[in-house]
Amino acid sequence: MTGVIVWVRVWVMLLLALSGLFTSAARPPRPLFPIGLLGGRKNVGQSSVTYAVDYFTQVIDHFSFRREASFQQRYLIEKRYWKGAADRGPIFMYCGNEGDVEWFAKNTGFLWEIAPSFGALILFPEHRYYGKSMPYGTMEASYKDADSLSTLTSEQALADFATLVIDLKKNLTAAASPVVLFGGSYGGMLASWMRLKYPHIAIGAVAASAPILQFEDIVPSDTFYKIVSADFKRESASCFNYIRESWGVIDKIASKNGGLHDLSTQFHMCRDLNASWELENWLSSAYSYVAMVDYPIPTNFITPLPAYPVREICRVIDSLPEGSDILSRIFAGASVYYNYSGQAECFQPSDPGNDDLGVTGWDWQACTEMIMPMSSNSSNSMFQPYDWDLEGNIQYCMKTYGVRPRPNWITTNYGGKDIKAVLKDFGSNIVFSNGLLDPWSGGGVLENISSSIIALVAPEGAHHLDLRASTKIDPDWLVEQRATEVAYITKWIAAYNSDKNLQGTKHVLKNFSNVQ
Amino acid sequence: MTGVIVWVRVWVMLLLALSGLFTSAARPPRPLFPIGLLGGRKNVGQSSVTYAVDYFTQVIDHFSFRREASFQQRYLIEKRYWKGAADRGPIFMYCGNEGDVEWFAKNTGFLWEIAPSFGALILFPEHRYYGKSMPYGTMEASYKDADSLSTLTSEQALADFATLVIDLKKNLTAAASPVVLFGGSYGGMLASWMRLKYPHIAIGAVAASAPILQFEDIVPSDTFYKIVSADFKRESASCFNYIRESWGVIDKIASKNGGLHDLSTQFHMCRDLNASWELENWLSSAYSYVAMVDYPIPTNFITPLPAYPVREICRVIDSLPEGSDILSRIFAGASVYYNYSGQAECFQPSDPGNDDLGVTGWDWQACTEMIMPMSSNSSNSMFQPYDWDLEGNIQYCMKTYGVRPRPNWITTNYGGKDIKAVLKDFGSNIVFSNGLLDPWSGGGVLENISSSIIALVAPEGAHHLDLRASTKIDPDWLVEQRATEVAYITKWIAAYNSDKNLQGTKHVLKNFSNVQ
Repeated sequence: MTGVIVWVRVWVMLLLALSGLFTSAARPPRPLFPIGLLGGRKNVGQSSVTYAVDYFTQVIDHFSFRREASFQQRYLIEKRYWKGAADRGPIFMYCGNEGDVEWFAKNTGFLWEIAPSFGALILFPEHRYYGKSMPYGTMEASYKDADSLSTLTSEQALADFATLVIDLKKNLTAAASPVVLFGGSYGGMLASWMRLKYPHIAIGAVAASAPILQFEDIVPSDTFYKIVSADFKRESASCFNYIRESWGVIDKIASKNGGLHDLSTQFHMCRDLNASWELENWLSSAYSYVAMVDYPIPTNFITPLPAYPVREICRVIDSLPEGSDILSRIFAGASVYYNYSGQAECFQPSDPGNDDLGVTGWDWQACTEMIMPMSSNSSNSMFQPYDWDLEGNIQYCMKTYGVRPRPNWITTNYGGKDIKAVLKDFGSNIVFSNGLLDPWSGGGVLENISSSIIALVAPEGAHHLDLRASTKIDPDWLVEQRATEVAYITKWIAAYNSDKNLQGTKHVLKNFSNVQ
Repeated sequence: MTGVIVWVRVWVMLLLALSGLFTSAARPPRPLFPIGLLGGRKNVGQSSVTYAVDYFTQVIDHFSFRREASFQQRYLIEKRYWKGAADRGPIFMYCGNEGDVEWFAKNTGFLWEIAPSFGALILFPEHRYYGKSMPYGTMEASYKDADSLSTLTSEQALADFATLVIDLKKNLTAAASPVVLFGGSYGGMLASWMRLKYPHIAIGAVAASAPILQFEDIVPSDTFYKIVSADFKRESASCFNYIRESWGVIDKIASKNGGLHDLSTQFHMCRDLNASWELENWLSSAYSYVAMVDYPIPTNFITPLPAYPVREICRVIDSLPEGSDILSRIFAGASVYYNYSGQAECFQPSDPGNDDLGVTGWDWQACTEMIMPMSSNSSNSMFQPYDWDLEGNIQYCMKTYGVRPRPNWITTNYGGKDIKAVLKDFGSNIVFSNGLLDPWSGGGVLENISSSIIALVAPEGAHHLDLRASTKIDPDWLVEQRATEVAYITKWIAAYNSDKNLQGTKHVLKNFSNVQ
C-alpha cells in the first residue's frame, strides 16, 4: 500500500496550492509543498502491473492553429487481457492526472483487477507537462515561462486523450470497441468532463473523488477545512479543541524573542523555523493529508499509518496526562503522521525552494483555470480562520508566471452550477464516487443526478480508495462499492453492444471479418 | 426578401471554398468567389429590426494562457420584448456565423417574430474575426498571418458566446433566465455544438440547415453535388443532361485557338476568359447557389429569382428550339440567375483577386478545421467528375497561410460518427431542421435521434428558409415547420421553469425579490 503516497502527494500539492497560506499578508502568497518529506523516494506501486510504454505525436495546441509543433505524449498500454476488436473488446482508459502516469498506473489496482473479466485493453495516457510528456522536449524547456506553459490546461489534456484514443482504435481496427474512462481526484474530474464533452469518444466514466463542484461559489469555500475539522471532531471534541487552540499558542511563542528557536526545538525541526507559518503549515498539511487518507485499513505512505489515522492522532493527543502542555499534545499527534515508525530524528519544515515537477505543473494550473476557492471559518474549522483571497492569488500568479487566473473559466467551460437541473435530462453513464471523510468530497457530486449519472457515497470512505487494489481486509462497503461500479460498467457495455444504431461499428466489424 | 443575399453569399463562399475547383492540376488550387457579382451592394434586411450595439471584452485565446490580450466582441441586443429577470424572461441567442452579425440579425426574421410572445431578450453575438469583432483591432492586423488568425476557430467562437452570455446574465441579474440558441448554416452547426458542449449555458437549440455530418467520411463526399444535380433532374432530365454535357463542349471550344474569346463572347463576359474553369466556375456557382435557395416563393437576391428557380432555369434551358446549340441553352439558363431582370450588359467571371472579409475568414476556417470533403461522381452528378483532394487542399493551405489542415479535428472534438448511437441517451433539446432540396441537407441530421433531439425535414425546403421572416405566401409546410419549432422551444422553457433542481435560480430569484 505504499503506493498511496502518490495519490496523497499530488493531492497535498493541490491542497496546499490552494489552501491556508494566504491567511495574512505577512505570509508568502504561495504555499510550500511537503517535498522534503517525500525526499527522493519513489512509489513502487503494484509489482504485478505490466504494460508497454509508447509515445504518440500530439499537436501542442488543439484549439489554435498558430503552432504546427507537436510533442511526444507518453502512454502505457496493456493488451494481454483484451479480447480483441472483433469481439468489441472494451478499452479502459485512465485519464492521467498531474504526475508521472506510471505512478497512476501502479496505483489504480481496481482497473487492473477488473480488466481481465471484461476482456479490456488498458490504456494510461499521460497528462501533458507531467512525467515524460513534455511539449517542448524537456521539462526545462516546457516549464520555461508562461509561453511554454500556456497549453498546460485540462481542455488540451482532454483533447490529447481524445486524439490518442481515436488514433489507437484506428490502428487496432477497433473503432467498435467501447471506451470506458476512469480517473481519481483531478483525473476523476477529467474523466467526468471527458464523458460530458466527448460522449462520442467514451461510453461512460468512473470518476472517483472528483471535486468538480469546488469552483467559484458552487460550494462554500470553507467546505474543505470544515470536513477536515469534522473528521477530527467526530473522533474527539477535545482533540479538535486542542488543535484549534494550538495556533494561537504557536503565534504567541513565535512572537517572543527566541520563540521560533524554542518552537523548532520542541517540534524537533532539523533547522530553526523562519516564521511561525512554517510550523503551522507543517501541522496543517498533516491534518489535511490524514483526513484525505482516513481509510478504514492500515496504509503505508510516507510513513506507515494505522487504520483510521485521524482517530489515532486524536487518541495520542488526548492521551497525554491532564495538564500537559498543548504543544506537547500537538507534537505527539503530528508524530503519528510524520513519525509513526519512530525512526525520524528531526523534521524538515516545508521547503519553498523545491521545484518538483508535480508541484510546478499544478501550481501553474492553480494559477490559470483550477481556481478552487478555499477558506477557513471559525464556526466550523479547527484551522486558523481566513477568507478566500482571490486577489492575493492573482498577485502571486502575475508575479510568479506573468499569468492572470481566470476564476470563472472552469464553470464557463464545464458547468457545475445547478448541475442536477442541467444534467438530469442531459448526459449519461457517469459514476461519481466519494468518501465522506475525504475533505474533497465537499466539492463532489453526492446525489444521483439521473438514472445513469450516479453518486456512490461512502460515509466511511476517504479519497478514492475504490480505485486502489483490493486487500483481504477491505470492509464490506468498499467491496460493495467496487461491485457496484463493475455493475454499471457492465451495464454500459451491454447497452452499447445492443445498440442498433451503430453504423460505424457494423461497418468496421464487416471490414474486420473480411480481413480474417 | 433581398436579405437572403447574405445567407446565400456566405454559403456560396463556403460552397466554393470547398468545392469543384480542385478538379484538375491545371486549375488553381483554391476557388474564386463571386464577389464581383455582389459588388458593393449591402444587404438591407428587415427594416423593422431594432437593437442596441455593444461590445464585450473577450480574451483572444480561451484555451491557452499565453496571451493575456483581449479584444472587443460586438453584439446586438434587444430588450424591448423581454419580460425581465424576475419572470425568468428567456434569452434568444443567435450564434453569429461567418459574416457581419448585423446581416444575420436582419435576416433571421423568425427569431424577431417569435421573441415577443416568449417575452424574450434577443442577443446576436458576432463571430470573432467577422464584422467588427476583430481580435487585433483592425481587419488588417487580425488577418495579417497565421499567427494573428490562429484563434479563428469554432471552439473559440463558442467560448466567446458562453463567456458573453454568462456575463450578460450576471449584469442583468438574470442567472435564472433560460437561453435558447438559434443558428443557420454554420451558425446552426455552432448552435447544435454549443448545446452539446455547453448544456449549462443553453437549454436548447434550433439548428437550421446545419451540415454537422459533412466531415471526414460520415457522409459520402459526393453528397452535395449529388443533391444539386438531383434538384435539376427532378425538374427535367433533359436539363440535367444538357448541363452535364456542357462541360465537355466548353473544354473543347476552349482548347481551340481563339476558343476562349469565342466563349467569352457567347457568354457575354465583360472581359476575355483566361481559362475554361473561369466559365465553368461561373456556371457551377449559379447551379449550386440556386439549388440552395430553391425556395417555393419568389425571392430577391443578387437579382430577383422566381419561386422554384431551379425549375425556371430548366424551363428556359429546355424551351429553346430543338437543335439549338447546347451552350446557348446553358447561357439562357444561367441568365435566369445572373440576369433575371434583364439589365446586365455583361458578366464578370469570378475574380480571384478579391479579399473580401467573409471570404478570407471562411477560407482560413476551411484551411484549418472546417474540412468538408467534396467530390463529384459521374454516376449521380451533372457536374464534372472529380475526387476529393485532401492533399491539394493541404498544399493550398500550407502555401497560402502556412497552416496545415486538421481534417479529423471536427469529428474528434464534436463527434458526428454514429451520432444516433452516441446521442440517443445523451444530450437533449435540439431541433435540426433541413430542407431536402438544399444540397447541404446531405450533411444534416435527417432522422430523430431521441425524443428530444429532433429532425424536422421539409421535402420541399431549401437552405434554412424557416429562420427567415414569414411572408403571406408561405406554403403550409413552412408555416407548420415554424410552429413546430415554436412548440419545442415552448416545451423546453416550460420544462426548465418546472425544474425543482434549480438551486442557483432560486437563489437568484430570492436575491432579486430582495432587491425589489
